[in-house]
Amino acid sequence: MPSKNDRRKRTRPGKIDVVAFDADDTLWHNEPLFTRTQQRFQSLLGLPQESEAISRKLYEVELRNLRHFGYGIKGFTLSMIETAIELTAGRIAGRDVQKIIDFAREMIAAPVELLDGAQQTVARLSASHSLMIITKGDLFDQESKIARSGLGDHFRHIEIVSEKTEQAYVAILLKHKIRPERFIMVGNSVKSDILPVLAIGAAAVHVPYSTEWIHEKIDRQPEGDSFFRIENIGQLPDLLAARPDLPRSGAI
Amino acid sequence: MPSKNDRRKRTRPGKIDVVAFDADDTLWHNEPLFTRTQQRFQSLLGLPQESEAISRKLYEVELRNLRHFGYGIKGFTLSMIETAIELTAGRIAGRDVQKIIDFAREMIAAPVELLDGAQQTVARLSASHSLMIITKGDLFDQESKIARSGLGDHFRHIEIVSEKTEQAYVAILLKHKIRPERFIMVGNSVKSDILPVLAIGAAAVHVPYSTEWIHEKIDRQPEGDSFFRIENIGQLPDLLAARPDLPRSGAI
Repeated sequence: MPSKNDRRKRTRPGKIDVVAFDADDTLWHNEPLFTRTQQRFQSLLGLPQESEAISRKLYEVELRNLRHFGYGIKGFTLSMIETAIELTAGRIAGRDVQKIIDFAREMIAAPVELLDGAQQTVARLSASHSLMIITKGDLFDQESKIARSGLGDHFRHIEIVSEKTEQAYVAILLKHKIRPERFIMVGNSVKSDILPVLAIGAAAVHVPYSTEWIHEKIDRQPEGDSFFRIENIGQLPDLLAARPDLPRSGAI
Repeated sequence: MPSKNDRRKRTRPGKIDVVAFDADDTLWHNEPLFTRTQQRFQSLLGLPQESEAISRKLYEVELRNLRHFGYGIKGFTLSMIETAIELTAGRIAGRDVQKIIDFAREMIAAPVELLDGAQQTVARLSASHSLMIITKGDLFDQESKIARSGLGDHFRHIEIVSEKTEQAYVAILLKHKIRPERFIMVGNSVKSDILPVLAIGAAAVHVPYSTEWIHEKIDRQPEGDSFFRIENIGQLPDLLAARPDLPRSGAI
């Protein structure tokens, strides 16, 4: 009969076997696409010296519209159109509105550029862990990007949610019958990928991205034994290999 | 030891225990909201005698945009704006574009009106069956409507997909480990709710809605022992009670 220790080793309590990835700016570049589009929008509307005012107004309209339109390219586009109407006091030309809609179509069709190391990391970890994508935003945009990323087959589950709240994570874990101790979330947003995950008793790895949408910025810094930060996604396999029971082992 | 028949009775092979509902125009009214908005759009753009031409153009733009924007209010709104620009040769006023965006905001905030019998049917069946919603469209719109419908708690799983293809249904059944023989789909669209479901070996109940978006119309008529049609959703519990093993029993 195996000793208690043997049994413990076999079932590996506390072992993390489910790794969930955020998608935008964690697996592939996303924010630069919005930044570039916003620059084109600013050029369309005004002189260079006005670009900060345009950007401020656009952000104000986006925030106002989030509860109506949610995240994603279509909501962003409707916000650009409204901003253009407001800033020109309704004098924007139809052909310029058409250009803004064309920006949207180009954004949706833009190639999906993987982050350095993302492909290798996902391929390597899929051999040892059950992988998920948990991303927020527009269902249609996100499905299209996952398909075009070429990474889709490595993931056992793909969850697209409208907001990454604690409740959203709890619902996903319940649905797939995953205990929080088995789960680690990897992403670039402290607000969406880290804090709500730590709050429900799971582990989280922050991989900062070079630029961040102002709406995702947050002052609170995560802390605790279940929180990790790496510089790039290529470091993830070593982190997981070194600490298979992360929440018990403390920070690296 | 129980006889083979007893065992058979106990485990009830072939019994349908998972009932999935489409949402728009199956549980609550949806198409009239688009129809009313389209009428307001036509009034905004032209004279009554032009309304058919406007409607035809809008449908053409919507079809062209489906692969870029998917289904839902935001895509519909971008299509209305493009139609307005094309039909006015770019002369549409900014304030009229703003009115179109305001239509979108009103659509998103519109009360969710349940179909007659939907509440009672769902409440009654949730006691005996595992219920799901499988709906296509914009994640943000659909989640908001499910929340406002007051029906959400009756459903064990809610799946929002971008297209209701055979593959989409297969993926959902695999994910929840449901054999097709246990599954019945209830909806108003032959194209989205019935044909792909019959094709994967599950059963389907068509509940026609009074009006249908032209894009959902289809000439092919479903047939076979696993296909049923009822006049209103209130008839569903009796259908399921009378035929717990529908696919074996043939049409009612």
